[in-house]
Amino acid sequence: MADLFVIKIGGNIIDDETKLSLFLKSFAAIDNKKILVHGGGRLATKLAEQLKIPQQVVEGRRITDAETLKVVTMVYTGYINKNIVAQLQSNNCNAIGLCGADGDAILAHKREHPVMDYGFVGDVDVVNTVFLQSFIEKNITPALSPITHDGKGQLLNTNADTIAQEVAKAMSSEYDVQLIYTFEKSGVLTDVNDDNSVIPVITPSLFSELKAPLTGVGVPKIFAGMIPKLDNAFAALNSGVKKVIIGKAENLAGLIDGSSGTTIINE
Amino acid sequence: MADLFVIKIGGNIIDDETKLSLFLKSFAAIDNKKILVHGGGRLATKLAEQLKIPQQVVEGRRITDAETLKVVTMVYTGYINKNIVAQLQSNNCNAIGLCGADGDAILAHKREHPVMDYGFVGDVDVVNTVFLQSFIEKNITPALSPITHDGKGQLLNTNADTIAQEVAKAMSSEYDVQLIYTFEKSGVLTDVNDDNSVIPVITPSLFSELKAPLTGVGVPKIFAGMIPKLDNAFAALNSGVKKVIIGKAENLAGLIDGSSGTTIINE
Repeated sequence: MADLFVIKIGGNIIDDETKLSLFLKSFAAIDNKKILVHGGGRLATKLAEQLKIPQQVVEGRRITDAETLKVVTMVYTGYINKNIVAQLQSNNCNAIGLCGADGDAILAHKREHPVMDYGFVGDVDVVNTVFLQSFIEKNITPALSPITHDGKGQLLNTNADTIAQEVAKAMSSEYDVQLIYTFEKSGVLTDVNDDNSVIPVITPSLFSELKAPLTGVGVPKIFAGMIPKLDNAFAALNSGVKKVIIGKAENLAGLIDGSSGTTIINE
Repeated sequence: MADLFVIKIGGNIIDDETKLSLFLKSFAAIDNKKILVHGGGRLATKLAEQLKIPQQVVEGRRITDAETLKVVTMVYTGYINKNIVAQLQSNNCNAIGLCGADGDAILAHKREHPVMDYGFVGDVDVVNTVFLQSFIEKNITPALSPITHDGKGQLLNTNADTIAQEVAKAMSSEYDVQLIYTFEKSGVLTDVNDDNSVIPVITPSLFSELKAPLTGVGVPKIFAGMIPKLDNAFAALNSGVKKVIIGKAENLAGLIDGSSGTTIINE
């Protein structure tokens, strides 16, 4: 099977025009088949503030009410997505911006929860691999924004990391998929304050060791916030993704050729 | 050649949730190959006001400065376009929302003018017929928002009527194209205050007569504002479009089967 890179860019890059432009240049230069997934950055929050839409956050999760959905749809599928596509075009990368409703690319359902109402938040049901493949095979690069739909006319806000993971898993039936998450650090670090403490490769056995050293209890050897990310990475590997790579957006070429970041593999 | 309908919806429909929903239902029911083109409605102006972005209008034309471009990109390619696509999906019409940057669908250049600076306004250079055809032939309906790009990374604001016309002209090389403009009237009227005074068919000779009756000078028999629209309609016919139909969005089925609206033909 051919290689396919599914690359998620973090908000810190989206918020910085110069960094975004450099990132898109190096993304466009990747010779392989590829899909870009982007999140939102701070612009949606800023716009909601300007429009005086109160932002409800419950247990660290933003509640997407109807007005907030309008804002994130405008910012993610409109401003950010189309500017990314225009810049990729200018770098000779023929891109197409898609949300989940376009061509029924990603079908989701409104999150159900016994107690909480998250509002218009979508959990992914189906990724339309045939539709995405039709672009990839014509050398057109999909740029996905994290808005999905329920097939009944409702748009839904979906976490961009989840979109990247679900797309990577689904596309594994057709390609050897490498899933790259870019964020502000150089990789998974043993010392969160030292960007040179990158762990180059994490296997399931090393991950167990890092999470709960020696006795199976105690202080993890990595930043606690990385543990759910790594759990998700192994879940992706167990669903057919070949490799997950975590690292700095500025080092994209290194993440692709394996000289930078942390590679997570199933042995 | 197969028939293709290029259908432009006016702002009055976009601003009315119920009317839009009914329109999209009847649009989805059209059995033929089709492309939807939408404009903006009042939402962009409202959002610009809320964000306190001053709107400059010179000689009836809105100047698109950088902040206004941001707003129209968010509203047209984001909020309006993606809601239209989600609603079409719910009516079993597999649609894809596109702006000119997506797949390099519509290439434009920033308008040049000896005196005026219109800002980020784009005049169309090339419509990518092969790209649009690739969807139509797979029974995927393009929904086009009126934002184009210059190929150098710049998005541009382009009049939606112009997008509809340029797309209709370009697609005439591949299809028998009928271009439908929907607006708030039932068609071209002899009495602007009487919606029953629709002229069913306008040919070039009748148009001359309507513009300048008898002596070649004098008061036109139709509302003066219709004359540039009809000039554009004949320009489209002269560039290969088979028919132009003008009428009420609420009567879409009638506009398609010829029982409603004004049909403009070259004899």
